[in-house]
Amino acid sequence: MDILYGNAVVGQSGGPTTAINATLAGVISGAMSSEAIGKIYGMRNGIDGLLRDDLILLNDRLSERADFERLKRTPAAALGSCRKKLPKEEDKNYNETFERIIEIFEKYDIRYFFYIGGNDSMDTVAKLSKYTKDHGYEIRVIGVPKTIDNDLLGTDHTPGFGSAAKYISVTMQEILRDTAVYTVPAVTVVEIMGRDAGWLTASSALGRLMDMPAPDLVYLPERDFNMEEFFEDVRSALKKKPNIVVAVSEGLRFADGRYVGEGTQGGAVDAFGHKYLAGTGKALELAVKAEIGCKVRSVELNLPQRCAAHIASKCDIDESFGVGQASVTAAVQGVSREMMVILRDSEGNEEYSSVFGHMDIDLIANKTKYVPKHFINERGNNVSDECLKYILPLIKGECYPEYSNGLPVFFEF
Amino acid sequence: MDILYGNAVVGQSGGPTTAINATLAGVISGAMSSEAIGKIYGMRNGIDGLLRDDLILLNDRLSERADFERLKRTPAAALGSCRKKLPKEEDKNYNETFERIIEIFEKYDIRYFFYIGGNDSMDTVAKLSKYTKDHGYEIRVIGVPKTIDNDLLGTDHTPGFGSAAKYISVTMQEILRDTAVYTVPAVTVVEIMGRDAGWLTASSALGRLMDMPAPDLVYLPERDFNMEEFFEDVRSALKKKPNIVVAVSEGLRFADGRYVGEGTQGGAVDAFGHKYLAGTGKALELAVKAEIGCKVRSVELNLPQRCAAHIASKCDIDESFGVGQASVTAAVQGVSREMMVILRDSEGNEEYSSVFGHMDIDLIANKTKYVPKHFINERGNNVSDECLKYILPLIKGECYPEYSNGLPVFFEF
Repeated sequence: MDILYGNAVVGQSGGPTTAINATLAGVISGAMSSEAIGKIYGMRNGIDGLLRDDLILLNDRLSERADFERLKRTPAAALGSCRKKLPKEEDKNYNETFERIIEIFEKYDIRYFFYIGGNDSMDTVAKLSKYTKDHGYEIRVIGVPKTIDNDLLGTDHTPGFGSAAKYISVTMQEILRDTAVYTVPAVTVVEIMGRDAGWLTASSALGRLMDMPAPDLVYLPERDFNMEEFFEDVRSALKKKPNIVVAVSEGLRFADGRYVGEGTQGGAVDAFGHKYLAGTGKALELAVKAEIGCKVRSVELNLPQRCAAHIASKCDIDESFGVGQASVTAAVQGVSREMMVILRDSEGNEEYSSVFGHMDIDLIANKTKYVPKHFINERGNNVSDECLKYILPLIKGECYPEYSNGLPVFFEF
Repeated sequence: MDILYGNAVVGQSGGPTTAINATLAGVISGAMSSEAIGKIYGMRNGIDGLLRDDLILLNDRLSERADFERLKRTPAAALGSCRKKLPKEEDKNYNETFERIIEIFEKYDIRYFFYIGGNDSMDTVAKLSKYTKDHGYEIRVIGVPKTIDNDLLGTDHTPGFGSAAKYISVTMQEILRDTAVYTVPAVTVVEIMGRDAGWLTASSALGRLMDMPAPDLVYLPERDFNMEEFFEDVRSALKKKPNIVVAVSEGLRFADGRYVGEGTQGGAVDAFGHKYLAGTGKALELAVKAEIGCKVRSVELNLPQRCAAHIASKCDIDESFGVGQASVTAAVQGVSREMMVILRDSEGNEEYSSVFGHMDIDLIANKTKYVPKHFINERGNNVSDECLKYILPLIKGECYPEYSNGLPVFFEF
């Protein structure tokens, strides 16, 4: 195989995660040490920035090892992100858009294209691959996955999941202590991200594997939610101890398909007449208050789940960096139109280890990896030890940012 | 002065904080190294546990330095807490309650009583002091303050505030990165604890002192909230950049005294007919959506503000431990019916330092330390540099828990 010489461009797309900059650091590091790649450019705000000719030369920006370490520990997308989908062939701006992209590629002699993102970003990779192939522009196009939701197929887990799971499981340990100090009966409902897949909610129960406290009840969106059974579960838990903690996924739905959080929207308006949209946790807080009448509060873990770099998982940050580097190696070796994956290399071993691979994008795009049935108990109110054993190695190790005067120092381009 | 020989008892009361166990560790450490004090007992669930004769001998439980270090880094109240107020003289259970307390004191030969808590706990200290004095039971009674709200008079700041402020300011740095990745106009409202005093909300702006990102607008409960001015402020901020972040205190009120969060309660009911109670952040999210129409979300930082031991302030943990130790020294030296305070010992110096003192409880109890006028800008939508300079040293230093398999190991009695 001939080596393809030229420059590279990398972009970030979709929702931020704690680890997406570690992957960016990995791609930059890989590109800088590759003999095939001359310069490595960054797109500001993903493909949007590419179309605007808003590229920055990255080789100058990260010169020392300390720069890479800082970028690895910086949350959100340091290059900026976008939610743009490239047009389809039948769209009227199709030719115009892709001709513009080729124009930019030619201007900067781009022969390697790395796109770090979720499912939508893989769509960009697929479309770009097809257009450039059809129009004879030689380029290697690689997708590098990121999502805190861990819901992509083909990869054992997704870069970004481990850090979100660590934030959730550590915070859950703290909330379990906080809610246990009084003797009056009380229910705390903790709402965790994950609209379709319950991986993050499952991770809130990791303490159980370590003989540490754990939430009493755990509900994932993979199972239909039944309010009567939920009340039974809560009543039964309250008989055993005064303070119970319930972990719920934001995406919980009833059997008829309605979101549990929709309950709070049914005609509810505030003083200004605005229709009220609340979350699953709030809906269940109100339901418990009305039905059981004990002290109850809800906590929505919210944005910190995807950006709490101060308690990132070392396993996740290292793998996210590694998969970025590996994407460059793969591209230089001729791989294109594929998404990078992480494969667990430790079946049967005591120690967890992983290797990087890549997979045809069509096998992955627009599909969801759900928590499998046998990872959820029969009653549907907790997860199995097997589920927790799958997640635990992914939160191992701490990877702290550098602090100055008490505040974390993050990387800025 | 004669040395008072006997045993000691310590309890925790009121809402949990990240640092209240550091103070407990300090009291235990102080008692164990005091020649006047024989045994040190812990009350389970504060004064409630004392009345139930539910005491545990602490000397056996913390034998090594590592035990103290672990307790210092454990959030919430390791001995459990309560919200009990002791009866007043006119209450019919007054004599019965205090006779019971004296009975327990005599049973265990308690001559030192340490109570770690907020304003209500100082009430317990005052009543116990009076009763024991009036009835000739010789005992030294000391209050050791804790509150994340920093709203107690007499002390430069409260143990527990620095760690809450650190969690908030670090998380704000991360949220500011997370919300900055897109180019579409968006408003993020972050709701921070503090019903009467805005100290915690002010701490969200600390980045500004360090030339780091900071919230664009900061509203404290010390100033009346005006919705029209708020809309003007948001519009004006959106003209300068697409993503703006607004920090608001949960206790914001309009000039007529209504809480801003009450707006969402005015007759709003959900699908089940429950009256809807939401927060200040949610109310402002709805208001911005209706008035300005841009993308908007709200984030309530919620419980982690008072229990995020994983990102505790070293300054706070060290001082909280130190003030616990100092309370024992003071009691042995004859101090009673006083609350311990922290005094800033670094006026005019570059380096922050503090010393411990104590103060008559009547000068402190049932009063609130507000953020002073000159710490807030004229428009009432941000805090002054002077305010931030006061807070900054209190979040300095990191004090991480020990981790095992990715999860923090906390102390359990």
